[in-house]
Amino acid sequence: MRKLLSNCAILASGDEGFEFIEKGFLGIDGDTIDYIGGEKPIGYGEERDMSGAMLIPGLVNAHTHTPMTLLRGVGSGLPLQSWLFDTVFPIEDRLTPALIRAGSELAILEMLSTGTTSFTDMYMEPGETAEAVLASGIKANICRPVQCFDPSEPVEENFRVRESLALYDKYHNAGNGRLKVDFCVHAEYTCTAPVVKYYAALVRERGGNLHIHMSETKKEHGECMEKYGVTPAGWFAGLGAFDSRAFAAHCVWVTEEDMEIMKKYGVSAVHCPSSNMKLGSGFAPVRRMLDAGLNVALGTDGAASNNNLNMLEELHLASLIHCGYTGDPTTLKPAEALKMATVNGARLQGRGDTGQLRVGKRADIAAVSLTAPHMRPNLDPLSLLTCSAQGSDVVMTMVDGRVLYDHGKFPTLDAERIYRDVDTAVGALYK
Amino acid sequence: MRKLLSNCAILASGDEGFEFIEKGFLGIDGDTIDYIGGEKPIGYGEERDMSGAMLIPGLVNAHTHTPMTLLRGVGSGLPLQSWLFDTVFPIEDRLTPALIRAGSELAILEMLSTGTTSFTDMYMEPGETAEAVLASGIKANICRPVQCFDPSEPVEENFRVRESLALYDKYHNAGNGRLKVDFCVHAEYTCTAPVVKYYAALVRERGGNLHIHMSETKKEHGECMEKYGVTPAGWFAGLGAFDSRAFAAHCVWVTEEDMEIMKKYGVSAVHCPSSNMKLGSGFAPVRRMLDAGLNVALGTDGAASNNNLNMLEELHLASLIHCGYTGDPTTLKPAEALKMATVNGARLQGRGDTGQLRVGKRADIAAVSLTAPHMRPNLDPLSLLTCSAQGSDVVMTMVDGRVLYDHGKFPTLDAERIYRDVDTAVGALYK
Repeated sequence: MRKLLSNCAILASGDEGFEFIEKGFLGIDGDTIDYIGGEKPIGYGEERDMSGAMLIPGLVNAHTHTPMTLLRGVGSGLPLQSWLFDTVFPIEDRLTPALIRAGSELAILEMLSTGTTSFTDMYMEPGETAEAVLASGIKANICRPVQCFDPSEPVEENFRVRESLALYDKYHNAGNGRLKVDFCVHAEYTCTAPVVKYYAALVRERGGNLHIHMSETKKEHGECMEKYGVTPAGWFAGLGAFDSRAFAAHCVWVTEEDMEIMKKYGVSAVHCPSSNMKLGSGFAPVRRMLDAGLNVALGTDGAASNNNLNMLEELHLASLIHCGYTGDPTTLKPAEALKMATVNGARLQGRGDTGQLRVGKRADIAAVSLTAPHMRPNLDPLSLLTCSAQGSDVVMTMVDGRVLYDHGKFPTLDAERIYRDVDTAVGALYK
Repeated sequence: MRKLLSNCAILASGDEGFEFIEKGFLGIDGDTIDYIGGEKPIGYGEERDMSGAMLIPGLVNAHTHTPMTLLRGVGSGLPLQSWLFDTVFPIEDRLTPALIRAGSELAILEMLSTGTTSFTDMYMEPGETAEAVLASGIKANICRPVQCFDPSEPVEENFRVRESLALYDKYHNAGNGRLKVDFCVHAEYTCTAPVVKYYAALVRERGGNLHIHMSETKKEHGECMEKYGVTPAGWFAGLGAFDSRAFAAHCVWVTEEDMEIMKKYGVSAVHCPSSNMKLGSGFAPVRRMLDAGLNVALGTDGAASNNNLNMLEELHLASLIHCGYTGDPTTLKPAEALKMATVNGARLQGRGDTGQLRVGKRADIAAVSLTAPHMRPNLDPLSLLTCSAQGSDVVMTMVDGRVLYDHGKFPTLDAERIYRDVDTAVGALYK
């Protein structure tokens, strides 16, 4: 079935960067883009008028913890230790698989309604998230994070490792590859060397990605130096964690040498601007990471430390904050920020077939309305998207050519049922 | 005519800060709030069901340049000097009164649709903005900025001074006080001492506010020190500019001594987080200004350096960025940020009768929908508002009890005509 999106602005990807088409047409054959241009093509059975909208590549949220929508905003304004130990952890202890399912489903509603077509998740009970992903039509890379608090425990006996392997066997490449399973070492400060070595071997053997938190806080980075005499990046590299595909969330405190290590091994970084500011972690050296040749993607982190999963907001923050803290308004160009939010994230996920509006790529698309007062006039489509657009300006989100969000409606999901489940979850967690 | 807003959440102001009512009623008598509570009162002729929304005080944009919506996003990513001299100034030279009117009207649409009920403006041809304000029903403090490039010219002969006085005589307190006229010395680096002295005397004599730009960039602050041996705050204070009501936009580089001066004279500061980051100006010391006892309000600055006029976004940024650059997540509490965006701005404008939802205050109200996925669950209304809400979540905006924005419609304005005028303006400015 071929269908055509008509009469809309298109932010296409050309060989030299983004190419803006003011009034164009985008053709889709099944799950793949087969035409982009200013002339109306023939041969499409279904046509949809998209006047007043701009098509952009679907956004990729490269680091989140979806079930934490159930903790949205809790403990705001508390110091980090009190936020984590007195607020977040006790609530997480009360989470059940059913509640995790509700939280992931709410997250998927939020992401689809704000233009995200693929996300990378890290949380407990990821089988629940997997089922939510498969039912919704969105794409995701999920993982079961491993932590190890008893260094004498054989790695194979850590229940998290067993869950991680079972998850991979059951769900990797499910839904025609929409769902991928990554492996995950939570962080240097929550793991031991034997676990990292075990996972490094696992990824070398099975493929996939290794997902880690790295150098998020000054404390974490400094304590690793004290304990091991190397930075977290040096520690992971020394244990073979970077011998296969790997990516590191946050990277706020990475050094020039860390960047060299990441470049050498092809380790991607995920920048999480909201979370890093909200938790007082600092400003990741995004300009320097890009200059070092690293693949830098963008993520929301979980809703407890954000407080939402709105990639247009992260795009906006990434565009602004680095100019603010360097004192140089040219620090990050809108096109660079948009690539971080789209194609760089897709690359990190191992999805080379998406992240760009380009013939031959998957039809993973968000349509952003240009009709609200704050979207007028459209003098510079890229800066309009990075600095003016709100998540709510997204009017349609499509994954593999299938419409998953359409002007407030979710064709594949029962939003009202999910909202009821969220209310039930809140009752169970907080009352 | 008494009317009742029913069945909605309300973020009311109590003696101890904000008080959240989960399901409440807000009564309005003419232009004034006469009831707030959880019990339904009697005696209201008109009732409107506001289920699913949260009423908040109307937002006050305390520093902007409304006609610059016509320059939204131009020159993004350029170095400051090139942005200003090669891009912004040449376009501004082509502005006519009719174009300025269109830009102000577009700005008013944008502000009303994102919950702003009052703004403080600084631009050329403010008579056009005045007419737009009066026609729309919004509140505003406007001014004609004075610059002086010829120190030998008698102040009275500067055409900007004459325009400023004429504006005051014609429009001050027009529309039953909805419109107020301030006086304005553009900045230290664009004015001379005689002009400042003249304006200081003018404000002492006539009342109103003195609106200035102050210590926005390190360069400006440093060059003033070199030229005069004092900071901009010291220079203005020494010339009597702070002897009457005054407020200063930006204040990025103010020193501890500057804060003492501002405290002594009751000078308010306007924090413009987006603009300060976008232009690479830096992070204003908001925590220290608040600790020094200053009245700190919030503003968007013009759309050329933002790129929009969305106060919920500034509220969000103000909440986040100071935690980011201090490394302390407790730096600014959501309630402090919300006060900056509402009552502190009203105080700066000389409007003691608004900025809070409280019996006896003006009915200047925004209704924020709680129904979208990103607004669920509502575990902490203040952090939901500061960190999760988008401008587009505003469903209704009311000024003096009159609905000016309602689910995409503008009862007092012809949005389609304004959009056509904006298209015409863009044609004149850019083609």
